[in-house]
Amino acid sequence: MRKWFCEEGVPGKRAENQKVLFKISRVVYEGRSKYQKILIFDNPIYGRVFVLDGIVQLTEKDEFVYHEMLAHIPMFTHPKPERVLIIGGGDGGVLREVLKHPVEAVELVEIDRTIPEVARKYLRFVCRSAFRDKRVNVYYEDGIKFLRRNKGYDVIIIDSTSPIKHAKPLFSSRFYKYVYNSLRKDGVMMTQLCSFLDFSTFLTRQVRTIKKIFPIVKPYRVTIPSYNCGEFCFLLASKRSKLDEGKARKRFKRLTKKSKLRYYSLEMHKASEVMPNIWKKL
Amino acid sequence: MRKWFCEEGVPGKRAENQKVLFKISRVVYEGRSKYQKILIFDNPIYGRVFVLDGIVQLTEKDEFVYHEMLAHIPMFTHPKPERVLIIGGGDGGVLREVLKHPVEAVELVEIDRTIPEVARKYLRFVCRSAFRDKRVNVYYEDGIKFLRRNKGYDVIIIDSTSPIKHAKPLFSSRFYKYVYNSLRKDGVMMTQLCSFLDFSTFLTRQVRTIKKIFPIVKPYRVTIPSYNCGEFCFLLASKRSKLDEGKARKRFKRLTKKSKLRYYSLEMHKASEVMPNIWKKL
Repeated sequence: MRKWFCEEGVPGKRAENQKVLFKISRVVYEGRSKYQKILIFDNPIYGRVFVLDGIVQLTEKDEFVYHEMLAHIPMFTHPKPERVLIIGGGDGGVLREVLKHPVEAVELVEIDRTIPEVARKYLRFVCRSAFRDKRVNVYYEDGIKFLRRNKGYDVIIIDSTSPIKHAKPLFSSRFYKYVYNSLRKDGVMMTQLCSFLDFSTFLTRQVRTIKKIFPIVKPYRVTIPSYNCGEFCFLLASKRSKLDEGKARKRFKRLTKKSKLRYYSLEMHKASEVMPNIWKKL
Repeated sequence: MRKWFCEEGVPGKRAENQKVLFKISRVVYEGRSKYQKILIFDNPIYGRVFVLDGIVQLTEKDEFVYHEMLAHIPMFTHPKPERVLIIGGGDGGVLREVLKHPVEAVELVEIDRTIPEVARKYLRFVCRSAFRDKRVNVYYEDGIKFLRRNKGYDVIIIDSTSPIKHAKPLFSSRFYKYVYNSLRKDGVMMTQLCSFLDFSTFLTRQVRTIKKIFPIVKPYRVTIPSYNCGEFCFLLASKRSKLDEGKARKRFKRLTKKSKLRYYSLEMHKASEVMPNIWKKL
């Protein structure tokens, strides 16, 4: 019986020099899809932990930080998001948050059919009833191929795994161009990158790449305790929309009358835009 | 030859269920003082790592986050800090930052004489030349005993280890009362607590305790990547001083003409005051 899960992390310098051990109180699911190794276990601090290819994707204890910030920052930056596309995000967490807005249609493109299946069974606290919502359509295919055929989105959120293996193309200039072309004129894109500490070269390169395509690019600092190294960078790219605080506040009030938010607020939104001096060159 | 250091953490639920491994490329110092076990080693990501009783205190890579935020938040909240007291902080990091302000005198009370000795030898990147500054006086004794005899401070910063063993009294109501009495009428106290995720009960209790003594109490969120669980809580307590942005901005400009700050700015100061909905009850 395995007692501990050792998070190896994204192959590279960090993985070789720091590792995190999580006690396993129960293995809930273990398998291998066409694309990746899947492990779901319970831990006494973090609750249920979802691991892909040896990297922690989310935990029951703090998934709301990641999902709320990744979804609501672009959704409130856009003045009136009606059609939303999520690339990746097969666990349904971002979908759940997007659906709290009065959207008309949300499409989710997940390359790995196994993820939503497993999520619906073992990660119900993440997807809740999101996949059953009538506004939702799920497609199982490569995100880039899908984008080439489909256009007219207000918000596109990229919720992928780390920039390796099948997720690597989702961090390319070619991909960001497809995203740009698939967005309407007020369109906003949001993507998660990686920690500031480890990947400053990668981060700077990504920001430069996206700045060549989108006129407005904004990094966000978000702290996710269960992710090794804590502080993560999200990147927002926009054709012309900027957060209009007055209008956003009205929409926020309306949204929180019906739905609870545990982390996101307009104050948190603006606070996570502030960068330490050392990263300002970004 | 040891290859890995396993951070056990503060005894309790987290320590039992999550551990962090740091590769040791070289053990720099290992010893035991009257109060604690000391370990200093080098790691390829974090550089030099300073460990007390099995808990990482600081690393070369990110110590500036902790030290700048712990020092400058209270220093800029006070309108004109002249006399400053640091309780703990024997590594000299907070001292280094406080000395960037035009203060008259800084006293540092460290219970463990071995810490500044070891810091001056092996953690020069932390203390730099701080201990040689003419404005500084260092005392080796118990912080509470010292406070009972000494009064008239503008700012008191508590930079202790976790609330166990010899540091436990530094988190008591009795101690906070002494701090209150030792502060002048504009006086400000700053202390580091622990992560939000693990210690919400402890945190809430601390905030309540301090609120009975100080009229103004403000928590701050600070992300320190090398600390297990990332997001730390600092607590500021004040007799009547509040951040005066206009005046602080002038002082900030003057300070940064002479000294570099890598993390702190007035924008970061205000951003770390913002709490997620889930912690607002604090």
